Amino acid sequence: MIRRATGVARNGRYPGGVTFPVVGMVGGGQLARMTHEAGIPLGIRFKLLSDTPQDSAAQVVSEVVVGDYRDLGTLRAFARGCDVITFDHEHVPTEHLRALEADGIPVRPGPDALVHAQDKGVMRAKLVEIGVPCPRHRIVSDPADVVAFAAEGVPAGAEGDGFPVVLKTVRGGYDGKGVWVVRSAADAEDPFRAGVPVLAEEKVDFVRELAANVVRSPHGQAVAYPVVESQQVDGVCDTVIAPAPGISDELALGAEELALRIAKELGVVGHLAVELFETRDGRILVNELAMRPHNSGHWTQDGAITSQFANHVRAVLDLPLGDPRPRAKWTVMVNVLGGDYPDMYSAYLHCMARDPQLKIHMYGKDVKPGRKVGHVNTYGDDLDDVLERARHAAGYLRGTITE
Amino acid sequence: MIRRATGVARNGRYPGGVTFPVVGMVGGGQLARMTHEAGIPLGIRFKLLSDTPQDSAAQVVSEVVVGDYRDLGTLRAFARGCDVITFDHEHVPTEHLRALEADGIPVRPGPDALVHAQDKGVMRAKLVEIGVPCPRHRIVSDPADVVAFAAEGVPAGAEGDGFPVVLKTVRGGYDGKGVWVVRSAADAEDPFRAGVPVLAEEKVDFVRELAANVVRSPHGQAVAYPVVESQQVDGVCDTVIAPAPGISDELALGAEELALRIAKELGVVGHLAVELFETRDGRILVNELAMRPHNSGHWTQDGAITSQFANHVRAVLDLPLGDPRPRAKWTVMVNVLGGDYPDMYSAYLHCMARDPQLKIHMYGKDVKPGRKVGHVNTYGDDLDDVLERARHAAGYLRGTITE
Repeated sequence: MIRRATGVARNGRYPGGVTFPVVGMVGGGQLARMTHEAGIPLGIRFKLLSDTPQDSAAQVVSEVVVGDYRDLGTLRAFARGCDVITFDHEHVPTEHLRALEADGIPVRPGPDALVHAQDKGVMRAKLVEIGVPCPRHRIVSDPADVVAFAAEGVPAGAEGDGFPVVLKTVRGGYDGKGVWVVRSAADAEDPFRAGVPVLAEEKVDFVRELAANVVRSPHGQAVAYPVVESQQVDGVCDTVIAPAPGISDELALGAEELALRIAKELGVVGHLAVELFETRDGRILVNELAMRPHNSGHWTQDGAITSQFANHVRAVLDLPLGDPRPRAKWTVMVNVLGGDYPDMYSAYLHCMARDPQLKIHMYGKDVKPGRKVGHVNTYGDDLDDVLERARHAAGYLRGTITE
Repeated sequence: MIRRATGVARNGRYPGGVTFPVVGMVGGGQLARMTHEAGIPLGIRFKLLSDTPQDSAAQVVSEVVVGDYRDLGTLRAFARGCDVITFDHEHVPTEHLRALEADGIPVRPGPDALVHAQDKGVMRAKLVEIGVPCPRHRIVSDPADVVAFAAEGVPAGAEGDGFPVVLKTVRGGYDGKGVWVVRSAADAEDPFRAGVPVLAEEKVDFVRELAANVVRSPHGQAVAYPVVESQQVDGVCDTVIAPAPGISDELALGAEELALRIAKELGVVGHLAVELFETRDGRILVNELAMRPHNSGHWTQDGAITSQFANHVRAVLDLPLGDPRPRAKWTVMVNVLGGDYPDMYSAYLHCMARDPQLKIHMYGKDVKPGRKVGHVNTYGDDLDDVLERARHAAGYLRGTITE
């Protein structure tokens, strides 16, 4: 029998000498929590670097180190005994990741890939270089430069000043934070106050937002999930429909190929979410990249043969990837945001009794208005029914639906 | 909005005053491990009483108390801060469970139900009382009494001594341990050596073994999973096929109704597995009962809308139960037993590459020959294919298949 060595060493020793790898997860949020959940069946060891012992993932993981991921000494101490390091977020400084790699710890995704999810300026430059369609954009230096950027978008002979324009700090934003839609020079002052470079982008006249989720392993295997429709409310993901309703085979295949190409060209290892705009004239433009399990892939927990979390674990361990195909005709994910009524557990009675097929995923997080504290998944053959069930459950958990 | 109180108090406080219940699990084996995994999405707190910090579940749970479940003081200390107590095994002494109940801690299943899974003598007496078909049986006092019991089974005018006969210690057996098939008085001496009462049963001439899995909640809601075929090797469950191939609607419905009736009559809360013999003349006889998630229900993790583990958690919390229906035409579970080759992780490469739809569930246990260290699930439309994939993967992981 041939037993090939796998892509990582193995520090997780069981009493009888059986070894399984130890995955070090930096960040204790819900993505880490759900990745741990997906890793349990593989028998791997999971070690967590968490900001506090109360973080979402720290509540459910056995081996937790509480510490600051911005401190290299903390990261280095955490990495000892881990066979591979991966992430719940993109905020670990690039130079720290290089230091860990120099110490001989595989970092997946690695710093050369991850920088494209950390820095929107670097991301745009790279996507343009490899010919990926993006919204018109450039780094701007001050409000006057924003006015100039807006004017550059007005076709010759047309009227108007080119506003609105989207401004983004190149680092540190998420869920609509660090993003502004501005309509004048006066509007454009805030983004420059942080002292971080600011990227200006055209405000794309899109018909809807899509997301293409792919997973890539170090030896180059990659899988693509069906392209989904992602509906945002106030800049925060609200509803995801898998697959995107009414999408043409050509557009779906094009989006999957685009995401796979980006994963390859950027050297991504693990899960890559490519957020897309579908324009009125049937093109797709890349909005954002995320190199970790992503909100637009939460539907895969109950709707795909292999979830994004399971495939992320398999990818960072360089194990063969699991089948990404859907198990149902339609799967819908709706986020549960914190509302005025914090007692979500009591709402389980109504939600579970109303819909015995409902899948609730709560993160163990303190309820604050607008904060993502969980999501629900539903699936079935009738999209209207699947959507109604998910929206009702999420609304009831939040407290906005009371019947 | 009406928010009903749920059936348990809630000690799991999050920073903002959100409360979720704390489930106390006694026993750190793989059933506890997989129950924790299924509880993570519900946002509940899970607290474990484990024999050692290395036990299967202790590797993946945040709050672990290491202690001896046979010690009442340990159990009482563990139960403080838990909202409900449930079990990974049936070995907690009945009087300790009564003491916890007297302390005001809900114990689910409760001692009055659980005793039927702890004591085979009590179980047989109760099943006869409520009219459930069982193999011929009685408590026997010594080898001579076994000979008498065997002879009682020989029809008038027929030849033979009535052997073989099955002997079982009424307490403490599992996976073929505490069970003997004897062919003579001389064979029958071992079972009496433990000083535990011995139950004699006819050796049923069955065509196959079935299992009916049901879940019941304190307020009386109950769900039934499809009846499965369970194939044993050397007294240990090897393969489970869901649903049982070729079973008549009448027999399947009869078995489900029987299990639901037993759950109700015995006051079971949580998962109940009823192991059944299907006789050559088309009847079913009850073999064993287990009041916890059960090996014959592991297929539900990937093959049912709601897994047995998720429904066990919902039942002990008195939450509405989830839909038990299958998601695939056929689901097959094959156990992975410890073999000569302890490095199961290396075998993942072959297994995952060969079958991207394969579901591996490993328990983090030391590999010992014959020990259950994991299982695999496969599902699909073609039973031959589904069976072949599961058997190949389990055999390869164990090391008995080497191609």
